[in-house]
Amino acid sequence: MFRNTYDSDNTVFSPQGRLHQVEYALEAVKQGSAAVGLRSKTHAILLALKRSTGELASYQQKMFRIDDHVGIAIAGLTSDARVLSNFMRQQAMGERMIFNRPMPVNRLVSSIADKAQVNTQEYGRRPYGVGFLVIGQDQTGPHLFEFSPSGNSYEYYAMSIGARSQSAKTYLEKHYESFADCNLEDLIRHGLHALRETLQQDKELNVNNTSVGIIGPMGQHEKPISPPGSFRILEGDKVEVYLQSMEKKEEAPAPVPAPASVPDAAPAPGSDEDVQMSG
Amino acid sequence: MFRNTYDSDNTVFSPQGRLHQVEYALEAVKQGSAAVGLRSKTHAILLALKRSTGELASYQQKMFRIDDHVGIAIAGLTSDARVLSNFMRQQAMGERMIFNRPMPVNRLVSSIADKAQVNTQEYGRRPYGVGFLVIGQDQTGPHLFEFSPSGNSYEYYAMSIGARSQSAKTYLEKHYESFADCNLEDLIRHGLHALRETLQQDKELNVNNTSVGIIGPMGQHEKPISPPGSFRILEGDKVEVYLQSMEKKEEAPAPVPAPASVPDAAPAPGSDEDVQMSG
Amino acid sequence: MFRNTYDSDNTVFSPQGRLHQVEYALEAVKQGSAAVGLRSKTHAILLALKRSTGELASYQQKMFRIDDHVGIAIAGLTSDARVLSNFMRQQAMGERMIFNRPMPVNRLVSSIADKAQVNTQEYGRRPYGVGFLVIGQDQTGPHLFEFSPSGNSYEYYAMSIGARSQSAKTYLEKHYESFADCNLEDLIRHGLHALRETLQQDKELNVNNTSVGIIGPMGQHEKPISPPGSFRILEGDKVEVYLQSMEKKEEAPAPVPAPASVPDAAPAPGSDEDVQMSG
Amino acid sequence: MFRNTYDSDNTVFSPQGRLHQVEYALEAVKQGSAAVGLRSKTHAILLALKRSTGELASYQQKMFRIDDHVGIAIAGLTSDARVLSNFMRQQAMGERMIFNRPMPVNRLVSSIADKAQVNTQEYGRRPYGVGFLVIGQDQTGPHLFEFSPSGNSYEYYAMSIGARSQSAKTYLEKHYESFADCNLEDLIRHGLHALRETLQQDKELNVNNTSVGIIGPMGQHEKPISPPGSFRILEGDKVEVYLQSMEKKEEAPAPVPAPASVPDAAPAPGSDEDVQMSG
Amino acid sequence: MFRNTYDSDNTVFSPQGRLHQVEYALEAVKQGSAAVGLRSKTHAILLALKRSTGELASYQQKMFRIDDHVGIAIAGLTSDARVLSNFMRQQAMGERMIFNRPMPVNRLVSSIADKAQVNTQEYGRRPYGVGFLVIGQDQTGPHLFEFSPSGNSYEYYAMSIGARSQSAKTYLEKHYESFADCNLEDLIRHGLHALRETLQQDKELNVNNTSVGIIGPMGQHEKPISPPGSFRILEGDKVEVYLQSMEKKEEAPAPVPAPASVPDAAPAPGSDEDVQMSG
Amino acid sequence: MFRNTYDSDNTVFSPQGRLHQVEYALEAVKQGSAAVGLRSKTHAILLALKRSTGELASYQQKMFRIDDHVGIAIAGLTSDARVLSNFMRQQAMGERMIFNRPMPVNRLVSSIADKAQVNTQEYGRRPYGVGFLVIGQDQTGPHLFEFSPSGNSYEYYAMSIGARSQSAKTYLEKHYESFADCNLEDLIRHGLHALRETLQQDKELNVNNTSVGIIGPMGQHEKPISPPGSFRILEGDKVEVYLQSMEKKEEAPAPVPAPASVPDAAPAPGSDEDVQMSG
Amino acid sequence: MFRNTYDSDNTVFSPQGRLHQVEYALEAVKQGSAAVGLRSKTHAILLALKRSTGELASYQQKMFRIDDHVGIAIAGLTSDARVLSNFMRQQAMGERMIFNRPMPVNRLVSSIADKAQVNTQEYGRRPYGVGFLVIGQDQTGPHLFEFSPSGNSYEYYAMSIGARSQSAKTYLEKHYESFADCNLEDLIRHGLHALRETLQQDKELNVNNTSVGIIGPMGQHEKPISPPGSFRILEGDKVEVYLQSMEKKEEAPAPVPAPASVPDAAPAPGSDEDVQMSG
Repeated sequence: MFRNTYDSDNTVFSPQGRLHQVEYALEAVKQGSAAVGLRSKTHAILLALKRSTGELASYQQKMFRIDDHVGIAIAGLTSDARVLSNFMRQQAMGERMIFNRPMPVNRLVSSIADKAQVNTQEYGRRPYGVGFLVIGQDQTGPHLFEFSPSGNSYEYYAMSIGARSQSAKTYLEKHYESFADCNLEDLIRHGLHALRETLQQDKELNVNNTSVGIIGPMGQHEKPISPPGSFRILEGDKVEVYLQSMEKKEEAPAPVPAPASVPDAAPAPGSDEDVQMSG
Repeated sequence: MFRNTYDSDNTVFSPQGRLHQVEYALEAVKQGSAAVGLRSKTHAILLALKRSTGELASYQQKMFRIDDHVGIAIAGLTSDARVLSNFMRQQAMGERMIFNRPMPVNRLVSSIADKAQVNTQEYGRRPYGVGFLVIGQDQTGPHLFEFSPSGNSYEYYAMSIGARSQSAKTYLEKHYESFADCNLEDLIRHGLHALRETLQQDKELNVNNTSVGIIGPMGQHEKPISPPGSFRILEGDKVEVYLQSMEKKEEAPAPVPAPASVPDAAPAPGSDEDVQMSG
Repeated sequence: MFRNTYDSDNTVFSPQGRLHQVEYALEAVKQGSAAVGLRSKTHAILLALKRSTGELASYQQKMFRIDDHVGIAIAGLTSDARVLSNFMRQQAMGERMIFNRPMPVNRLVSSIADKAQVNTQEYGRRPYGVGFLVIGQDQTGPHLFEFSPSGNSYEYYAMSIGARSQSAKTYLEKHYESFADCNLEDLIRHGLHALRETLQQDKELNVNNTSVGIIGPMGQHEKPISPPGSFRILEGDKVEVYLQSMEKKEEAPAPVPAPASVPDAAPAPGSDEDVQMSG
Repeated sequence: MFRNTYDSDNTVFSPQGRLHQVEYALEAVKQGSAAVGLRSKTHAILLALKRSTGELASYQQKMFRIDDHVGIAIAGLTSDARVLSNFMRQQAMGERMIFNRPMPVNRLVSSIADKAQVNTQEYGRRPYGVGFLVIGQDQTGPHLFEFSPSGNSYEYYAMSIGARSQSAKTYLEKHYESFADCNLEDLIRHGLHALRETLQQDKELNVNNTSVGIIGPMGQHEKPISPPGSFRILEGDKVEVYLQSMEKKEEAPAPVPAPASVPDAAPAPGSDEDVQMSG
Repeated sequence: MFRNTYDSDNTVFSPQGRLHQVEYALEAVKQGSAAVGLRSKTHAILLALKRSTGELASYQQKMFRIDDHVGIAIAGLTSDARVLSNFMRQQAMGERMIFNRPMPVNRLVSSIADKAQVNTQEYGRRPYGVGFLVIGQDQTGPHLFEFSPSGNSYEYYAMSIGARSQSAKTYLEKHYESFADCNLEDLIRHGLHALRETLQQDKELNVNNTSVGIIGPMGQHEKPISPPGSFRILEGDKVEVYLQSMEKKEEAPAPVPAPASVPDAAPAPGSDEDVQMSG
Repeated sequence: MFRNTYDSDNTVFSPQGRLHQVEYALEAVKQGSAAVGLRSKTHAILLALKRSTGELASYQQKMFRIDDHVGIAIAGLTSDARVLSNFMRQQAMGERMIFNRPMPVNRLVSSIADKAQVNTQEYGRRPYGVGFLVIGQDQTGPHLFEFSPSGNSYEYYAMSIGARSQSAKTYLEKHYESFADCNLEDLIRHGLHALRETLQQDKELNVNNTSVGIIGPMGQHEKPISPPGSFRILEGDKVEVYLQSMEKKEEAPAPVPAPASVPDAAPAPGSDEDVQMSG
Repeated sequence: MFRNTYDSDNTVFSPQGRLHQVEYALEAVKQGSAAVGLRSKTHAILLALKRSTGELASYQQKMFRIDDHVGIAIAGLTSDARVLSNFMRQQAMGERMIFNRPMPVNRLVSSIADKAQVNTQEYGRRPYGVGFLVIGQDQTGPHLFEFSPSGNSYEYYAMSIGARSQSAKTYLEKHYESFADCNLEDLIRHGLHALRETLQQDKELNVNNTSVGIIGPMGQHEKPISPPGSFRILEGDKVEVYLQSMEKKEEAPAPVPAPASVPDAAPAPGSDEDVQMSG
């Protein structure tokens, strides 16, 4: 592909009206480990695949609390994610201080989308290299948003980002109509089924590589927290009960396990920094 | 075509006096899904084709309310559209706060045209990659404007932007003389006919992919709103009655369904981000 | 022509001491539809060819009122024209507010020439891509100026800019000595004859594509306006009477209709945005 | 000539210690129509060849009054000339306002030379593309300076700039020793003889293409002005008497009329803007 | 490898979504001499290999005290390290001055990670070329963080950075589960074993090339310091006792001593400045 | 010579640690006409070769008075020289105003050396293209400094800069030990002998091309000035007496007149601007 | 060597994590004439080789006094050295004015190292092209530091920088263990022996090319100064006694005089400016 004249600057359109630097930033999101989000009438949840940084690390954060009523899962450059999530926290905190209320979720998402748009248009900064799934709850109920480095944000019933996320989307599209009325346990099981689709053929979900973020009333396996229903992350043993509730994956008849998935760009071989560059 | 020396910077003229970066930005508008606008003596309406982002998204906004008396439909980069529409809202709000009146529509459109012109002339920013159809009503009656990233804005009797908009324009040019005296129902039917021309051969307008924006007195199928006649968007079931009023499309005798249409640049194959890059 | 090293930056001279970017901006002026200006002892008038934007547009402005005593016709990028004409309006308004008088025409023209010169010398901005014919009246009588994006402005007895303007100039040079003593009707007829020369062979001047701007006492076909003699634009039916007074064009004996005209660069084929890029 | 690496930036020396961009700016001066300056003990005069812009223009300024005691003739880009001459006027006006005296001529010339030097050394601006001959009178008598875009200014007994100025210099060098004691009429005749050398073979000096600027006591053909002896420009019929006093040019024996002249770069063919780009 | 278009600017993504300049900065870390960090329930320690600058230098600092409760070991450009460590000291000092308390370790690490992220996104600065292992103790116990120039920071049970650090990691991964309950002497012995893995085949750890940094209660070979348990560096004779406690390295059966190690880029031959460029 | 990658920017080192742009600026100094400086126990003098600008110029300044106690001779770009000498004058004037004393010569020279160094290190400005010989007298006696665009300044017993200055240096090195005890007349004669060495073979020193600058007690051929011993420039007839005192130049036995001289870069042929570009 | 993509900007890493512009700046240090530094328990001394600028210069400074207790020797660009040494003087002066004490030597060295680091990381400035040996005395005794343009500074027992400094280092490494207890005379003799190693084969140390800088109690050949023990430079006859105390250099058995030395880059042939570019 000979597209080299127009892709080295975020302020240059290609003759086809495309912004290649923004598309490359979206590639960075695809390099990150997968995350899945779902929404019922009562809950919004996130499920993420922790990419192993070896056994030496305590854990590598894939989910972050923004405020009592908002949490995110990331895919892409973790350092960019930290900058943007800190910005979200400041916005949310400011809303509480000035207006004494939780910030509406869509406004909170728009605030980083606006910030990201600037980096797609003005010279001197690259686009952010990270995507978010944002769950939150406000007066209009539970929400699930996707934020992308192109400066866009959309609300979804269910969504997946990161490596092999197309496989998860295929699952979600098949079942999303039933999500609205699911209870928390069923919603998580659907999410785990979707997340499993993003795994390479020889990998399994387990208590070490799976984390679940929840907003909404406490589930039957959960202990009360304060404030009730606020964002919490389940990891390790706490996800065991949900993992065991999963149905066995139907055997793929053909040897190609995820035919609908786009072949992802392989990470740089032998680069142990790659893990840190893309979360 | 060898035009590569002069098209990588928005501040460089080609030897033919052209600004290629601006033309490329206009390509981004052509990549967006189509929108149609029409104007009668009493109403100004917008009709837009919602580009599917899959079934998982609640909806993808193609129309936005700016103020009670002004609404827009967009084609192109949605993140750029959000920045510009927020700017319009601030202008309109400022007018109400300072002068206690709705902002005249042509001044509101000029404000973003001036903003866009700067990005075609000064170094360090790319042109905006989005076009608007703007409808509004002020003391001089209903209006329809097109805003383009080249910094231009023109008033029209009827207009179409986005992918395959040339086919819609052909329809509009054939019928526009009758629009001035149409009632709302007829005006919408004309708009739907024009919008249908932008569809690919195997697609149909339906309640999921069609939205209608209206300024002017309430139609016979509408319920009263406040303030009366202000900008409203009809979606889903509310457009059903209008869709059913459409006349069957005359069969194209030749196998080429839209001979007058310019072949649009195909979107990048297999890129699911393309939907978000160009709305 | 191999002139590629020196033409990509407005701050670089070629070895021949030329500023190619400025020359390319002058090309943009040549791409615009033609305008003609003439001056008698009592009047200064503008005539412009409205380039069709299809039937859907209400009209495309080619002439603008700056102040009671000044009006302009443009050729080139309309968005650049809007920026510069707004600047002229502010200058003229400031003069009225501060000194309570109309701004002398030559000073008003110099103000945009100075503004344009900066863009031919300082890095980070392209030259403006639009030329003006400016008519005005002040204590020294009626005036006609040409403003060009090179930062120059000259006073003329008669002048033409835009596409095929050379043909109009040939007509004007043949007859300009008689202009000083013409009455308004004769002056307009001369202007229409000159404007007709810029048409392609199969086109005619008519009430839809011709507009006339006037400064000076009211003609016999005009109604009084306030303040008397101030700048007004005649369009549509109001130009009918002048069109009918035109003499039939002498048949060109040779098949080449406008032998003195420089072949203008053809607009990009099939580009409907071209109309908006160059007015 | 392969000198392309070092000539695209005004802040880069060539390996030979040359500033090519400055040299190219000097080319722009050579493209302008010629001007000649001479000095006697009592007078300093300028003579300039008005380059025709066609018959339609009232006149094209080649000489400008700066102050009562200073005037200039230009060669090169007229828009640059306007900027620099306005700067000179402000300097002279400031001196009068603050110190109540005319500004010494050499200081006035230095002020623009300093301004021009900056554009030969700092990034982001091109050098000015215009040269001046400056005449003036102060307590030290009449003066003639040349200002060049390289940031230099020198005082001369007689000098010529612009197209084919070398031919004029050859004449001046042959006769300059007699200038000091010339009366005004003789000085003008010498100047016209020198200016005639810059004409192409088939051209003649006449009342339309020749202008004369004078500082010093009124000549026998002049009417009194106020303040006496201040800068005035003679044009049209007023130069007739001087033109008639010229001696017939000795016939050049060889067919080459100006063997000492450097062949000037030809202007771009068929470009009617060229006249405006270089005055 | 042909990756040259996208790797010369820190603000440009490659088509694969990678930031090559950041990856090259990580190479600078790999060029530095190795450092190892370990954490028990009571202690956090650092062990570093002092790269010889010849016998003439007193010593070359590889470890730095930041505050009583925090110390670092570096690998990469020592001048960048000095800038960042000074910044850490100021942050820690400010916390003590304003809040009268030691700064929590994770916040201190985040402060430089945020600082480093900016240099991966904004134009005009290169990324930092140095990595840190940070040990500290606060209310949540002893900590070990890795800071990397990509703007990331992670907490680890044990970690190694710098040249041949992969070999040390292999050792640490094999034994890290026992570290939590180790006493200080055992923890240091494990660290020395890991550090030994980074040596070239003919080198040995000795009192001259080995330094140990400790946070936590005093060991049995240490003298009391004030405040008790604060960061201290052991060098020279003080590490003798620990070196002697090391177990003999098991003979590598194969001639390749560190099969898992990535072959490091060789330093520039014969360059005695290389030592200073990368610490 | 293929050195093209590293010589287009003043902020780039070549792999050999050289700053080519600074070296090219030194070439500009070598293009200027020669200047010679000498120092005795009582006097410091300058001798310069006025490069002819043709007979039309009154004179071309090669020497400038900075203050009563300091004067300079220049070689290189005269416009740069004017900027730097004005800066020196302001420094000297400030010293007199604030401290009521003449500025020590070495501090005055350092002030422009510091100014020149900035242009060898910071982006956006080229180095100065001019060198100075500075003579001055202060409490520590007479001084001779050389200032170079590299930002260096050294004190000398005798020195020469400009075209063919190497020949003059050869003379000065042969005789400099006798200068300290020379009276003014002998010192000038030595200077003239040295200056003569820089002439092309067919040129002679004469009253038109030679100027002498002096600091120190009045010579026997000089008239008293105020303040006594302050800087004065001798030109025209005043140098006649010294020229006549010169010894006849020994005939060069070989046809090569100045074998030790470096062949200077030839000026651009046929360029009459060259004189102004390099003084 | 094909390393051309990454070495033209100080803010770009090579794929190997190297900063080529910084390495090239280190080359500029290697081009400077050599300097040697040594430290005993009581003294710190510098020895430098004055590079001849011909006989005409009074002297070329290689050593500079910073404060009573600090002095430096330089190698590289002397204009850069002047800027940095002035900065050191200001720092030292500020410390005395504000705290009334001499500035600790290591802090003084760090101040310029921090300043130099900025130029290795931020766009728009080249790295400094000079290295220092810094001697000083404070409450912790005598010190010897090396400062390098990479932004590093290290303390040494003995060190050498500049052309052929590797040969001097070889001598110093062989003898440095005895330096601590040397008296001043022995220390100087060792320094001279080391400095002699940097000479080309046919050169000798003599009173003209050798200078010695000392901090510490007065030696037996020195006269008292005030304050006692402060930094002083011995030159000319004052170094005679030390030169005579040198032992004859053992004859190199092989014809290669300095086998361990790295072949230095040869200076540009025939360039007399080279002396000024690199001190």
